[in-house]
Amino acid sequence: MFFWALFRLSLQVLATVLCRLRAAVAPRVASSLRPAAALWLWAFRLHPERGRPNPKYPLLLPIFAFKGFFVENRICSLFNIEKPIVQAGMIWCSGWELASAVSNAGGLGIIGSGSMYPEVLRQHLEKCQAATSKPFAVNLPLLYPNIEQHIDSILEFKVPIVFTSAGNPAAYTQKLKAQGITVVHVVSSAKFALKAQAAGVDAVVAEGFEAGGHNGREETTTLVLLPLVKQVCSVPLIAAGGISTGRAMAAAFALGAEAVQVGSRFVASEESSAHLAFKSAVLSAGEGDTLLTLKELTPVRLLKNPFFQELVQAYQQGSSPEKLVEILGRGRAKKGMFEGDLDQGELEIGQVSALIRSIKPAADIVNEIWTEFQQTLVCMGNLVHNA
Amino acid sequence: MFFWALFRLSLQVLATVLCRLRAAVAPRVASSLRPAAALWLWAFRLHPERGRPNPKYPLLLPIFAFKGFFVENRICSLFNIEKPIVQAGMIWCSGWELASAVSNAGGLGIIGSGSMYPEVLRQHLEKCQAATSKPFAVNLPLLYPNIEQHIDSILEFKVPIVFTSAGNPAAYTQKLKAQGITVVHVVSSAKFALKAQAAGVDAVVAEGFEAGGHNGREETTTLVLLPLVKQVCSVPLIAAGGISTGRAMAAAFALGAEAVQVGSRFVASEESSAHLAFKSAVLSAGEGDTLLTLKELTPVRLLKNPFFQELVQAYQQGSSPEKLVEILGRGRAKKGMFEGDLDQGELEIGQVSALIRSIKPAADIVNEIWTEFQQTLVCMGNLVHNA
Repeated sequence: MFFWALFRLSLQVLATVLCRLRAAVAPRVASSLRPAAALWLWAFRLHPERGRPNPKYPLLLPIFAFKGFFVENRICSLFNIEKPIVQAGMIWCSGWELASAVSNAGGLGIIGSGSMYPEVLRQHLEKCQAATSKPFAVNLPLLYPNIEQHIDSILEFKVPIVFTSAGNPAAYTQKLKAQGITVVHVVSSAKFALKAQAAGVDAVVAEGFEAGGHNGREETTTLVLLPLVKQVCSVPLIAAGGISTGRAMAAAFALGAEAVQVGSRFVASEESSAHLAFKSAVLSAGEGDTLLTLKELTPVRLLKNPFFQELVQAYQQGSSPEKLVEILGRGRAKKGMFEGDLDQGELEIGQVSALIRSIKPAADIVNEIWTEFQQTLVCMGNLVHNA
Repeated sequence: MFFWALFRLSLQVLATVLCRLRAAVAPRVASSLRPAAALWLWAFRLHPERGRPNPKYPLLLPIFAFKGFFVENRICSLFNIEKPIVQAGMIWCSGWELASAVSNAGGLGIIGSGSMYPEVLRQHLEKCQAATSKPFAVNLPLLYPNIEQHIDSILEFKVPIVFTSAGNPAAYTQKLKAQGITVVHVVSSAKFALKAQAAGVDAVVAEGFEAGGHNGREETTTLVLLPLVKQVCSVPLIAAGGISTGRAMAAAFALGAEAVQVGSRFVASEESSAHLAFKSAVLSAGEGDTLLTLKELTPVRLLKNPFFQELVQAYQQGSSPEKLVEILGRGRAKKGMFEGDLDQGELEIGQVSALIRSIKPAADIVNEIWTEFQQTLVCMGNLVHNA
């Protein structure tokens, strides 16, 4: 009895020494694993009553616990950021103001270039660089018509990270990487994740069915998608879709993600360039107020509004895809999200809008998610079986 | 420096004493929180270098950590089980063999009475009671035509727990509770969760869009649904939909669940009464192989097969709901899941089938989920920020 108690105590002391040692070697590493806690939990494998290893603790527990001593958060290292929270690049919503605010708060801000003319992107890059000295990224939809001009601007302004989406990652990944740019691709299935990895991307974003805007045909939710992608990919995994809180971030980490990409929550930030009417519509959205539609064209999750009802009617009348394209017309997204036309505009937002109830500065959002994430981790650690 | 190190060490010793004390008071409580780990983490709030509280740790951390000393897993206490893992009551798949195997392994097994004649249910109850001395439950679809006969059997065999679904919880909750039965209701939205709570249920199961079989109209995924339900309900929350592993279980706990209900994984168990052909179809299902359909009638998630394609064609031809009812006909679920007709049968299974690759004894499934859950908790605890 006494021997085991002493042994456990000495393990704890050793843990503290190791922790100090490690802090001396890599004093500024963010989000790393805590070796001392690992050892502490290992010590607990020893049964408090019977003075021998507790059979209720699986044999592999110490290995899992020890692994923590060597593993870092690969996304923080890759992007050179403090907190593995990425703000999604969103058309009409994420310009330089939002991106720089998120980067300044220790996350990764992304300028959504999909809704910008080449000249507009250049202005945003200039202003973003003036507003932050921290790394930020550009989201590049690979089907963008003037993509070469966008890439020229990215190279000229030495943007360190590019998130590509909506297209074949094989097309530009190597070109960008040859210029020293970190490339991340957004996917909605394990199949596309494998393709992206084969193309040489540095990380993938796996985005589930609950996400706003354009979405995958498989309708796989984040909870199921993350382990599917994790199974086949060795590059770091960023979770997206349905994440607006620290608890959801912890859930994503439990499923193997090393960072989260948050979209909808940042639409309702002070720095987002979304129209105030759209932001207000996000705040008042409840459960079931968004739905995936236009599955015959490109599936997209929209807030239900008169335009959405028009689509529903067209479906009920058995309209052809051509007819749907005609109804959709052009410039609907700008009309809805940027100009605030809640009737006739296309309002792209995620299911998680049902949880968003306030407009806040982006830095506050980053810090709230981060704090809740850590609180949740502590609670999770405390849950370890104590029979 | 030395003072703080000593203070931290003494906190750790105190933690150990508290842990022993608690083990003496409630030696057999399962899945409880670990007060020692809480204190240990609290001690870490003290900055190792500067000898004062680490500002990187939020002020509320110790409160979150300490809460662990008082909180138990309410689902384990409510059901009197060891592991908060519930096997979903599934038509044609979960008879007495599966339910008793899960209960014997420390989880909660459920007999799915929705596909049973009253006489068949009585046989299953008898055999289940002979096969296990542990608690098990019956799933009762509230729209079942002979529900009174089922309830009589449940009372006669003194079944301690009933899971109700597919109907108004106000109808039978009080009647069952008056007989000392624990009542749990399955919901797909926060709105219905509130109704169930008002009806007096002891817990709710929140089932997301990714789940197999019948499903909600809002299409809310588990990741978004759990926090929405948690916001409005004070009764314990059981997560369902998309959960087949210990990592997914940990994700559900991060979102506030106190237990998980696992369906699809147990379809592919040795004790499930699903036809072997259906079990094999589940094993070979990949991502995107299930889809929610029949939204005009009752939304249901099915594995894509020739019958499913028939429905797709009917939709493309703009068929009326009446026509759909005609195509559906009667007995499709039995034909597919119980008799193994993979062409013409209705094959109800969740998205998570894409992750299921083996048929195993139910006890092994319970233990694997439980072990991985604990390993994930340890890893999560280790992730606590160490900048």
